[in-house]
Amino acid sequence: MSSKALDYENLNENVKKCQYAVRGELYLRASELQKEGKKIIFTNVGNPHALGQKPLTFPRQVIALCQAPFLLDDPNVGLIFPADAIARAKQFLGMTSGGLGAYSDSRGIPGVRKEVAEFIERRDGYPSDPELIFLTDGASKGVMQILNSIIRGPSDGILVPVPQYPLYSASIQLLGGSLVPYYLEETANWGLDINDLRQSVAQARYKGITVRAMVIINPGNPTGQCLSVANLKQIIQFCHQENLVLLGDEVYQQNIYQDERPFISARKVLLDMGLPLSKEVQLVSFHTVSKGYWGECGQRGGYFEMTNIPPKAVEEIYKVASISLSPNVPGQIFMGLMVNPPKPGDISYDQYVRESKGILESLRRRAHMMTDGAMYSFPQIRLPPRAIETANKLGKAADVFYCLRLLEATGISTVPGSGFGQKEGVFHLRTTILPAEEDMPAIMESFKKFNDEFMEKYEDHKGYSRM
Amino acid sequence: MSSKALDYENLNENVKKCQYAVRGELYLRASELQKEGKKIIFTNVGNPHALGQKPLTFPRQVIALCQAPFLLDDPNVGLIFPADAIARAKQFLGMTSGGLGAYSDSRGIPGVRKEVAEFIERRDGYPSDPELIFLTDGASKGVMQILNSIIRGPSDGILVPVPQYPLYSASIQLLGGSLVPYYLEETANWGLDINDLRQSVAQARYKGITVRAMVIINPGNPTGQCLSVANLKQIIQFCHQENLVLLGDEVYQQNIYQDERPFISARKVLLDMGLPLSKEVQLVSFHTVSKGYWGECGQRGGYFEMTNIPPKAVEEIYKVASISLSPNVPGQIFMGLMVNPPKPGDISYDQYVRESKGILESLRRRAHMMTDGAMYSFPQIRLPPRAIETANKLGKAADVFYCLRLLEATGISTVPGSGFGQKEGVFHLRTTILPAEEDMPAIMESFKKFNDEFMEKYEDHKGYSRM
Repeated sequence: MSSKALDYENLNENVKKCQYAVRGELYLRASELQKEGKKIIFTNVGNPHALGQKPLTFPRQVIALCQAPFLLDDPNVGLIFPADAIARAKQFLGMTSGGLGAYSDSRGIPGVRKEVAEFIERRDGYPSDPELIFLTDGASKGVMQILNSIIRGPSDGILVPVPQYPLYSASIQLLGGSLVPYYLEETANWGLDINDLRQSVAQARYKGITVRAMVIINPGNPTGQCLSVANLKQIIQFCHQENLVLLGDEVYQQNIYQDERPFISARKVLLDMGLPLSKEVQLVSFHTVSKGYWGECGQRGGYFEMTNIPPKAVEEIYKVASISLSPNVPGQIFMGLMVNPPKPGDISYDQYVRESKGILESLRRRAHMMTDGAMYSFPQIRLPPRAIETANKLGKAADVFYCLRLLEATGISTVPGSGFGQKEGVFHLRTTILPAEEDMPAIMESFKKFNDEFMEKYEDHKGYSRM
Repeated sequence: MSSKALDYENLNENVKKCQYAVRGELYLRASELQKEGKKIIFTNVGNPHALGQKPLTFPRQVIALCQAPFLLDDPNVGLIFPADAIARAKQFLGMTSGGLGAYSDSRGIPGVRKEVAEFIERRDGYPSDPELIFLTDGASKGVMQILNSIIRGPSDGILVPVPQYPLYSASIQLLGGSLVPYYLEETANWGLDINDLRQSVAQARYKGITVRAMVIINPGNPTGQCLSVANLKQIIQFCHQENLVLLGDEVYQQNIYQDERPFISARKVLLDMGLPLSKEVQLVSFHTVSKGYWGECGQRGGYFEMTNIPPKAVEEIYKVASISLSPNVPGQIFMGLMVNPPKPGDISYDQYVRESKGILESLRRRAHMMTDGAMYSFPQIRLPPRAIETANKLGKAADVFYCLRLLEATGISTVPGSGFGQKEGVFHLRTTILPAEEDMPAIMESFKKFNDEFMEKYEDHKGYSRM
């Protein structure tokens, strides 16, 4: 027995159980190496500003003015801030009572929620109700709030795609629920087979698990694909039949680097399907200022929108949000700016478009440089049996072993596929396309060189081994 | 049975159970009245900027520059920003990789954690380790992270003072643990009797509850008193005997409006006590930029510092923090500024001191205007039996009834004492001293008028009733 009140042995078991590979063993080792002076290229998490992406000017001007409202009375303010940024800052300050230093309503500033609702209406062609939009400290916090409302214990299951961004597995473990995996099919462009879904639910039920919700990540993370309308319709019908809340993680909706298949929101598809589904299928959709080409990760701005969630349940979600008082207010302003950016004719419009295009085109070139995927790519690595054996001897998963070697050799910090989930015996790694464009060729060259040497070292050459 | 996947009936029971009076029935009714056009004075939560307090200039200048780093190269920047704000912004940006738009380490920016450690060392006279300081989105989030690590289920108990700020009761309910109350003694200036504590623990044990931690709120919320060194020593010894983690909510450490008893941190008292206690008693201390006279509530900046928590447990707390990626970065910068403000000789020093003094002295005058308490006051209301009867008939607690009538009559939004906990049959209300100083006399006058009329209406006059 432990002698301390707060010791590893007597921590909440769910805390101990949960795994979060994006900042797991690889990240910790990379941080150590960085402290020792090694140059590390962090591609483990989408954090573009950390890799040199410059922030867009207009939103930063507006937020700077909101933070320093006394500047609005300074006769020199026009020398360093454009008039539309000044007007926008005044507009936001008018929406708050007390500016950025005051707690807002726990759901967020009503005026910003209205801007989000208008954005959704423009995007989907259906009106959206600001009262059903809650602003959050980034999308992750919103996902956790909703999962916390749903999960009552280990017999509540959540359908989660594999591979998946490990926020879902980690949150479900932390909240003491059961993750019910469904596999995306690598050979079918990471598509989703509705029959596999049915099988996953049947298997869970057999184990006594009630499946309560289904997560879709669209566009996919780490796979980067957009779901087709046909596929979304099947998913919505499936949720209707099985009485599941659909959780639509749509944080990558801006990041489409291929033209064949555009992003379409789950909400639009649902409402297009008409009655009775449009009034019956429950949907919560998530968005953020961190992803997209804005990449304002550190500001922690996000929202979720609820469709067909009964008012009494919405009230309870509001009550829980109120315990943390309010999401950070500057992050709320960023969300307002993202959904309502400068318009043609505004002083800052041209600069905003030029900067946005610059980032998006560079991301697109980098994406094509890497794979044809979206923000993240998830290449398969075919590991030779001797590499797998060596990893096993070291007590490590084979892909963890590969990624650690890659890190030590090149400084490139990736995430092993096992952190995202993959089929037995198949290995991947996840990297982002976010290093500065000019660094990409050298990084890819050093990656390729490492991979060639690794494979040569561990591949069985007929009658010859270099080990 | 419910027909919807996410309906009130099948929500997580802990979500339904938790109560958060600070934004409960009174707040919701006040929000309704405000929408209908009534002027509401929100004193339900300490939110000074919402009630007209101006932000301090220097921190806002620094954060504005950090948000708009391109201004640092603008030849006109010196016209509207002082040189020390520019230097400080450069210093903060140098601590991050990628500025405010990049996720930081999940524990916060190392450079800011170092500033916090230096502040703690200056305050307590003992060095502090930045690796044991985690920055958070306000203190509430830190409290929830630590409680989440401790609580395994309903048989884990947390000692919480009554009355208490309802963050604790709500979080414990949400996490499925058991609140073990100990009563502060109103007649002894809201002091803490160690024998009552022992009794609370004994009673909990009798019910099969293992008490794991003890919360102290020092200075008190809502009571506003500082604990004495002698009392803190008793508490520390008690935690040692009973093997409890001491959770020190010290968010009001700046807000002392009486001179007799200064604030002394639990950590200083613990380390002053020497071996073996200084190496054995586990302590987590919380602080924030929201309270104090800065009142930067909307920025959501906070920290917790861990003392005598074993490294393996710290690692697990770090892992869970990493699921949400990082606390908001602007809030971290505010924390850095609060613990390391302008120094004598700095260009902005005089203005910073003048503004700080202005706020503190006004708060002190308001506190004395209200009671001799600190930021919040918690007056007892002696309700006549007929008022209690009337409330009962309406299905409301008597103090809720009183506060609702006060709200309807005057627009003053308070929190009934039942939301903070009080002894059976004794009633209080919680209000803050934060309305603008010039409005205070009128507010107090209108409060007094309402109270006189209420009492007259419900008091039994001999042989005569006005009802």
